[in-house]
Amino acid sequence: MSLARKSVTFDGQFRMHRAGFIESPTLAYETWGALNAAKDNAVLIFTGLSPSAHATSSAEDPTPGWWEDMIGSGLPIDTDRYFVICVNSLGSCFGSTGPASENPGTGKPYRLSFPILTLEDVAESTWLVVKHLGIDCLHAVVGCSMGGMSGLALCVRHPESTRSFISISSATRAMPFSIAVRSLQREMIRSDPKWRKGNYRVGDPPTTGQRLARKLGMITYRSAEEWAQRFGRERSTNHARIEDMFVAEFAVESYLENVANKFSGAFDPNCYLYLSHASDLFDLAEYGGSLKSGFSRLNLERSLVIGVRTDILFPLEQQQELASGFSEVCEDTTFVELDCIRGHDSFLVDMDAFRPVICEFFDACPPAKAALAK
Amino acid sequence: MSLARKSVTFDGQFRMHRAGFIESPTLAYETWGALNAAKDNAVLIFTGLSPSAHATSSAEDPTPGWWEDMIGSGLPIDTDRYFVICVNSLGSCFGSTGPASENPGTGKPYRLSFPILTLEDVAESTWLVVKHLGIDCLHAVVGCSMGGMSGLALCVRHPESTRSFISISSATRAMPFSIAVRSLQREMIRSDPKWRKGNYRVGDPPTTGQRLARKLGMITYRSAEEWAQRFGRERSTNHARIEDMFVAEFAVESYLENVANKFSGAFDPNCYLYLSHASDLFDLAEYGGSLKSGFSRLNLERSLVIGVRTDILFPLEQQQELASGFSEVCEDTTFVELDCIRGHDSFLVDMDAFRPVICEFFDACPPAKAALAK
Repeated sequence: MSLARKSVTFDGQFRMHRAGFIESPTLAYETWGALNAAKDNAVLIFTGLSPSAHATSSAEDPTPGWWEDMIGSGLPIDTDRYFVICVNSLGSCFGSTGPASENPGTGKPYRLSFPILTLEDVAESTWLVVKHLGIDCLHAVVGCSMGGMSGLALCVRHPESTRSFISISSATRAMPFSIAVRSLQREMIRSDPKWRKGNYRVGDPPTTGQRLARKLGMITYRSAEEWAQRFGRERSTNHARIEDMFVAEFAVESYLENVANKFSGAFDPNCYLYLSHASDLFDLAEYGGSLKSGFSRLNLERSLVIGVRTDILFPLEQQQELASGFSEVCEDTTFVELDCIRGHDSFLVDMDAFRPVICEFFDACPPAKAALAK
Repeated sequence: MSLARKSVTFDGQFRMHRAGFIESPTLAYETWGALNAAKDNAVLIFTGLSPSAHATSSAEDPTPGWWEDMIGSGLPIDTDRYFVICVNSLGSCFGSTGPASENPGTGKPYRLSFPILTLEDVAESTWLVVKHLGIDCLHAVVGCSMGGMSGLALCVRHPESTRSFISISSATRAMPFSIAVRSLQREMIRSDPKWRKGNYRVGDPPTTGQRLARKLGMITYRSAEEWAQRFGRERSTNHARIEDMFVAEFAVESYLENVANKFSGAFDPNCYLYLSHASDLFDLAEYGGSLKSGFSRLNLERSLVIGVRTDILFPLEQQQELASGFSEVCEDTTFVELDCIRGHDSFLVDMDAFRPVICEFFDACPPAKAALAK
């Protein structure tokens, strides 16, 4: 655990949105920049399913973060001007309480005794961290992928929590293609005999299922167009072993193999199941019975929706739906459709396309200069 | 085995395209209608990866075939006018020799000792059946999905084999998205401990891996658009059991479960691996070093390319590539883009869209009426 990672434990029962509670949850987070005297320059980042709170590097932890080129001094989310917060989602496994954590009531890991997780729980626990930092109203919430839905959950439940919202490659709710993909990923892990109904042995997790799930993930995170350009029908150079009769002839297969090798073991399989399931469950329409009523509860001064043409997991129609919903209740709404070819992952890998859009959003609305000199 | 299914065994060694041979392969096939005296009214259907030769019903086998609404008396491929042939692909498991068949040299099933299968082998063995039926030149070859590539293999290697060609939701070669999907499906089966490196026990096949592969198949055979309309966020009615914490909450999950239950056990897992791999290997550009040179070897009087807007496995760009290539060498080339929402599977399930197109192709070029009265 790095010096940059802070954490806070909230004593008492944390009621879960669907049912049950967890006892005294811990939330891990990192911050960058300084909170101004008015406490109105805080930007909260909600992550996708798998990242930790380490969104960018710092003096305390110089290892690159998952959004290294977006957050920092002089970067679009400028830490010279903003106090940036990123929280490891409740249910995850990078310092926050989740299925891999010890249940204080039993002294054993929760595993499948962890209650059903929703993005409402992610939002509410994150909001506790924000309040803990002395902030009543955020300058902006930025939500990427699953994080966009967590952000929506926060905004619809606490309309006064933020002045502005940036939704990146997210949705009001999951549609059946994405549900089917995630359900199949979960089944891959659950089908691995080593999963043992969640009670996998320490040091012997269901890596086969996790690798399959990761490969399916990558197939949906990128785009056919990118891969056609990048790999075409190029052959792999390491195709030699006889047992590889059905695999690794093509460069794209080797690429997926490398991706799976890197990820395997980095994420707790039960945490993955809970967070993946939570992504399926969220539905803005549950607030009042329709998307319209859900949107009507928001109270935003500005909103920005960014979507990518080649995204098949959170497709452009869903970005248009978000933008249209925001614009009904927030006059200052901007919709940017990016022509990136790297699909859903573009916000992580196509920085040249995303930086100017995020930059313009923040430049157009700086906090008062005077307030910065606290 | 039904009375409709015929088969022929070709004595001697059948040389495989990549390497090796199989001894005296058997090919199963069905025919409908009558060959005319001029023997110029034969239509050959190349199937996709999984269907048998039972494309449509007949007096001998009244069970519905996989293209029941397309082939028959008065239907677009009219058995009153044409002699229709469908062959179970070499390497499959519905009567033709494949990895599940007994190797006559050892008396044991081939399993993974079956040589690498290519669509060239499927084409060449099918061509032997056509010749066996006394036909030197087909009226038309119709290839669906993988079958379109098998058909291309036939046409490029035997340019005099057919006067016309219909390619349905196929391609000149697989691109990396489809390769990645199929490679992952193969890995799902190979990862199932019950696969036992191809030596699965009789009565105990790797159904877990096969079910996963089938579900991934369905995700790519249909379209996000269809499922959004059909299922939306509808909940499943049979979500009750506690162990289903991560699954079967949504209607789309129950649907995939039903699909997997139906398919499971119907297809030999090793045959699936070989045919899936063969789909990845075919490349028209291997004939002369480029697609252009591959197309230039064709000798067609007419060609028709049908593609579907929502197909993600054999996307529209690949249909355009086919149509453009055909039109360079065959003046009478038609490209039809169908606005079906059921993706790659549309040719199997959206008959109202496909029938008129196929009908028009055959009506425009009937065999001489006189010749029909043999």
